[in-house]
Amino acid sequence: MIAFATPAAFAAALHDLPLPDGHSRAAAKARQAQLTKPPGSLGRLEDIATFMAGWQRRAIPTLDRGRVVVFAGNHGVAARGVSAFPPSVTAQMVANFDRGGAAINALAAAAGLQLRVVPLDLDRPTADIVEAPAMTEAECLAALNAGAAAVNPELDLIVLGEMGIANSTAAAALALASFGGDADDWVGPGTGVEGAALAAKRHAVTAAMARHGDAKGDSFETLRRLGGREIAAIAGAVVAARRVGVPVMLDGFICTAAIAPLAAANPAIVDHCVAGHVSAEPGHRRLLDRLSLDPLLSLGMRLGEGSGGAVAACVVRSALAAHAGMATFAEAGVATA
Amino acid sequence: MIAFATPAAFAAALHDLPLPDGHSRAAAKARQAQLTKPPGSLGRLEDIATFMAGWQRRAIPTLDRGRVVVFAGNHGVAARGVSAFPPSVTAQMVANFDRGGAAINALAAAAGLQLRVVPLDLDRPTADIVEAPAMTEAECLAALNAGAAAVNPELDLIVLGEMGIANSTAAAALALASFGGDADDWVGPGTGVEGAALAAKRHAVTAAMARHGDAKGDSFETLRRLGGREIAAIAGAVVAARRVGVPVMLDGFICTAAIAPLAAANPAIVDHCVAGHVSAEPGHRRLLDRLSLDPLLSLGMRLGEGSGGAVAACVVRSALAAHAGMATFAEAGVATA
Repeated sequence: MIAFATPAAFAAALHDLPLPDGHSRAAAKARQAQLTKPPGSLGRLEDIATFMAGWQRRAIPTLDRGRVVVFAGNHGVAARGVSAFPPSVTAQMVANFDRGGAAINALAAAAGLQLRVVPLDLDRPTADIVEAPAMTEAECLAALNAGAAAVNPELDLIVLGEMGIANSTAAAALALASFGGDADDWVGPGTGVEGAALAAKRHAVTAAMARHGDAKGDSFETLRRLGGREIAAIAGAVVAARRVGVPVMLDGFICTAAIAPLAAANPAIVDHCVAGHVSAEPGHRRLLDRLSLDPLLSLGMRLGEGSGGAVAACVVRSALAAHAGMATFAEAGVATA
Repeated sequence: MIAFATPAAFAAALHDLPLPDGHSRAAAKARQAQLTKPPGSLGRLEDIATFMAGWQRRAIPTLDRGRVVVFAGNHGVAARGVSAFPPSVTAQMVANFDRGGAAINALAAAAGLQLRVVPLDLDRPTADIVEAPAMTEAECLAALNAGAAAVNPELDLIVLGEMGIANSTAAAALALASFGGDADDWVGPGTGVEGAALAAKRHAVTAAMARHGDAKGDSFETLRRLGGREIAAIAGAVVAARRVGVPVMLDGFICTAAIAPLAAANPAIVDHCVAGHVSAEPGHRRLLDRLSLDPLLSLGMRLGEGSGGAVAACVVRSALAAHAGMATFAEAGVATA
């Protein structure tokens, strides 16, 4: 089990990152070349099989033990009217997850993935990032470690998701602090704000950046000041997954923004991550580009909860099924080109 | 069971096409608006649920009885060296399908779809389209009816696929005859040809078009002269599926080209079809644009066999799982925006 005792320990965990197993990757690639199809004709399904082989350290990777983890948190900045929904919806949706009524329940089941929901101090929203750092050092460490604790090294894949009213505001601030630009580059409608609420959101991000922008370059401080508990948990989970060799499926804008400060410190942190989809939130495509991540799906989704990642896990399952199940040209007696 | 007794009967079946059930569509749309998520936030998953509701004529559509049908045929034009593989591979791959060793076996199983393989007179290739019509009238009708026979009205979804060495040459000719342009617009590497083989392919399409171009505007004649048995079977299956209200998942370039002559005669023929993916074959995107079809996936696949359609069926399954399984705001006690 990975845990981060101090901010410095977290920063250290971002360096000297483990690499995928080159032998397993090469074996998977060699297998793909022998399967009964024209070379390369399964496109990204072949890349996925090789990717999973490298991180699972075996030529024929599996998806028997896949898990979606949805972290939930509340945000002080919600009081600024930046969301289409009241903050009470975060806890209501966690209850909905627990009863099985949310999109992610259906989508995780359809993808054959276990679902775990991790609410993080919902009755204690983070501080308003316009006024103060979102979290204390201890709070941020606790959130990072809650994320790390959700990573079982036995998992074949972990899909990360989030729920938190107003968290696309925090996500836009994180993207801005990590990759520059201005608020307009990163602020979008989220759950569906427009007009005055969208202006309030843009203003909050600009003001938060003015207050906390000097944290730029320090991934822990950026997460602590501008993030949120569920966002830090995702960051912690991504780092922990890397340290124990579990591949990660990212979801939408907020999930991706959670690793923006990590990637600003060490771009190689995304190497064990797949971008499940590009969401309808305009900043997501821009963020994926900055991270050099090519999303598997583009379906106009913008729900969060890990929903896009769960659908994308079906593509991973298909890729691994073909990789494991197909006959070679020699086995099948099929002539090669 | 739909069958086409004459070319005129096939042409007639392309007109006065049945429409989806507006009541079921409206009920599905109303349900989507009540589910615990911001309106529209599941993007195309919502559209798919509504689409399936309309064609299945029920507010909560299912994917319990989905089937992939792979039609296989051989092509006289293969003798011109237009493919990277010898024609014997068609029968070898059918044997591979029967033994469960091909990509489509793994992908259909992963998607929870039944697989049916329909070889069509593999020992009697069609005539070389550069020299003569591919099929006689009787042969073309037989192929259309083989396609129609694969459509069980009880199916929730039918995924159409093909196998036939040299059939991307026939597909390019069909696209050219249906939508104009020149050979370069529609001829691509297929299984992976380049250089002299690609030039031979381009030449074959141009020459076939010069010989048979006057069939343009007559969908039966276009299929008969430029198509192939597996291609005509797909066309027959699409028309039959429409007549009995079974939604269709299209696969790649060849599968899509099979309906190009139908769409040239009546563009509404695609209304019960979903484009599963856009393949790496350059003409496929162009063809989908002409048909006003927006592909669900873009994964660089170019295998055929229904492989892209089978992966896309996982997205349909996810869409229907969310549609059927989610709680409404009222049921969950979640506040609306």
